[in-house]
Amino acid sequence: MNTDKSPAPQTASAVSYEKLHRFAVEAFTRAGVSAADAAVTADVLATTDAWGIFTHGTKNIRGYLRRLKAGGLRAAGRPRLAAEGPAWGIVDGDSALGMVTSVFAMRAAIAKARACGIAYVGVRKSCHFGAAGYYAWLAAREGLIGLSMANDIPSVAAPGSRGAITGSNPISYSVPAGRHSPLLLDMSTATVAGGKVYAARTRGERIPDTWLIGADGRPTTDPSGYPAVGALQPAAGHKGYGIALLIETLSGILSGAAATWRVGNWLWDDGTQPTNHGAAFLAIDTNTLMPAAVFARRMEALVGEIHAAPRADGIERLYVPGEMEWERHGRAMREGIQLPPDVVASLHEAAKMAGMNPADLFGRP
Amino acid sequence: MNTDKSPAPQTASAVSYEKLHRFAVEAFTRAGVSAADAAVTADVLATTDAWGIFTHGTKNIRGYLRRLKAGGLRAAGRPRLAAEGPAWGIVDGDSALGMVTSVFAMRAAIAKARACGIAYVGVRKSCHFGAAGYYAWLAAREGLIGLSMANDIPSVAAPGSRGAITGSNPISYSVPAGRHSPLLLDMSTATVAGGKVYAARTRGERIPDTWLIGADGRPTTDPSGYPAVGALQPAAGHKGYGIALLIETLSGILSGAAATWRVGNWLWDDGTQPTNHGAAFLAIDTNTLMPAAVFARRMEALVGEIHAAPRADGIERLYVPGEMEWERHGRAMREGIQLPPDVVASLHEAAKMAGMNPADLFGRP
Repeated sequence: MNTDKSPAPQTASAVSYEKLHRFAVEAFTRAGVSAADAAVTADVLATTDAWGIFTHGTKNIRGYLRRLKAGGLRAAGRPRLAAEGPAWGIVDGDSALGMVTSVFAMRAAIAKARACGIAYVGVRKSCHFGAAGYYAWLAAREGLIGLSMANDIPSVAAPGSRGAITGSNPISYSVPAGRHSPLLLDMSTATVAGGKVYAARTRGERIPDTWLIGADGRPTTDPSGYPAVGALQPAAGHKGYGIALLIETLSGILSGAAATWRVGNWLWDDGTQPTNHGAAFLAIDTNTLMPAAVFARRMEALVGEIHAAPRADGIERLYVPGEMEWERHGRAMREGIQLPPDVVASLHEAAKMAGMNPADLFGRP
Repeated sequence: MNTDKSPAPQTASAVSYEKLHRFAVEAFTRAGVSAADAAVTADVLATTDAWGIFTHGTKNIRGYLRRLKAGGLRAAGRPRLAAEGPAWGIVDGDSALGMVTSVFAMRAAIAKARACGIAYVGVRKSCHFGAAGYYAWLAAREGLIGLSMANDIPSVAAPGSRGAITGSNPISYSVPAGRHSPLLLDMSTATVAGGKVYAARTRGERIPDTWLIGADGRPTTDPSGYPAVGALQPAAGHKGYGIALLIETLSGILSGAAATWRVGNWLWDDGTQPTNHGAAFLAIDTNTLMPAAVFARRMEALVGEIHAAPRADGIERLYVPGEMEWERHGRAMREGIQLPPDVVASLHEAAKMAGMNPADLFGRP
């Protein structure tokens, strides 16, 4: 959710992935996080920025640092497998950074899937994990199908409810696709992110009637009360709501994490307390089920068919999920990541909190 | 898809589950299907009718019989595990009835999940499997979380496409919920079923602009060309499209089944040929991961919280997924299944095809 209110510079700044990664590592290690955990977290956040998903990248370092300082996030937290079997595990995140716990959990799922074909790893005592897509892709870059999902404090209505019932509960999958970049979908189960509603409010604009419910629980085109009043609408009504409850079940219920209103708000709630977010990671080892070359050929045929399909008037290309993100990623790795002003402002604040000089990042002499 | 064009009686008829089941068993055994396979198929279809999902129940017996007669569906087909590991399997459906193959596959997934915690079973050489929800529920009634999904011949657009790219690719899940009925979501990844567009066309009505694209690939409110022209729109745009491709991957690609346009249309294509639908079934044994009583209590708390949540003006109840279907099911089992006219007409035709007397079903003396 993009509810950032900081004053922001007016132009985007290009920063190399390496510099951004180094900055993040430095900021987290200064907060007491180990070099290894800081590097893992920095890769999650800088990669997310490189995909152009700036709401879930390094912009949030500031918030994580605040929580590390307060103690609700434990710099020395060590995720561990609290229970496991051949194809499953439950990770206790020990209130470490959500990125550290999630990478640990997905790596466990990958190892188990290699042995058994598929694996599920549920997570409890985690926190905000950034972009779900990173963990799904972690599996895909090793040749497996990955799924990742998490719960969060409620912000989304159910059909007929007056207020929020589920979190925006994101779900992501990634599938290796031969010579193409891996398919990569990362979606919330709300119609739109709260940040979009907030932006419309800031601009004084009306919104489509599928985004928000108002104080009476009915769809509204008026964002002026948000987020104090109303709730987001679920994507495609009962479908998004239903998927959000599956995610709640696999992430929050089955893992032993907090569910719905018992999840802490990682940005606004008391920073001294753990948020106890839940998450779930699944990996399927395609190489176990089918020769790698056959799977790759079949995925390439699927992608090729979509690329070659007739397009609507005025449409230049048909995309498969993730294709836009991978193109942005390629450009960002070549030319630097064009950080938008709100991210730059947030990084400046993060630098200040960590006692660092932001000039080191943005290269002003 | 409800594209039935038969003349239909004007009133609904109540038939007991037992009678409807017996009718279906008789019809399928007369077509050469074994008594055991006929009973399995009859339970899938009659249960689906009892849930009130009449588009996917016994109405389709007629179509299945036609295909059994032509040979594209093999009455003596025997699904088997073509490959397997500890937590996975690939089922070759041998062009048996899709319901028979799907029950076989979900049972395999359940057994493997009991041993490993989770299991995936992919299916190839299957056919239309009716309602995805039945198989998910098969797992839930044994205490496991079940997921089921399938591909189909394309009928749904991708964002920006001029025509259909994916099937309506349904996905379903079911979760045991203690003293409550299992959660049960069964959704297609299109905004609405084709039958709804067709019904609006028949009534000469306009449709919302989120249902269909027209000949130019743009959203249209005019259903008059459907289904010859245009394609359904994916639910929530790129989200429904993305989920449809995940379903295609797990059902069609990874199983070795046909994908997208290579899937046969089970109703309209040459009945002598197999359709080679794909499907995928996942089971997670909650009892392996967490004491059954704890999982039940946590699910009950989730459902209870939703039932108790504030409602929008004019809303009497908040439902969890499947709750409406289970209430209809309860009523149907007590008072008989109120078959709508198009189903009754279809059953009359099925009876004729099988050389049976429809009076046996509808009890006219």
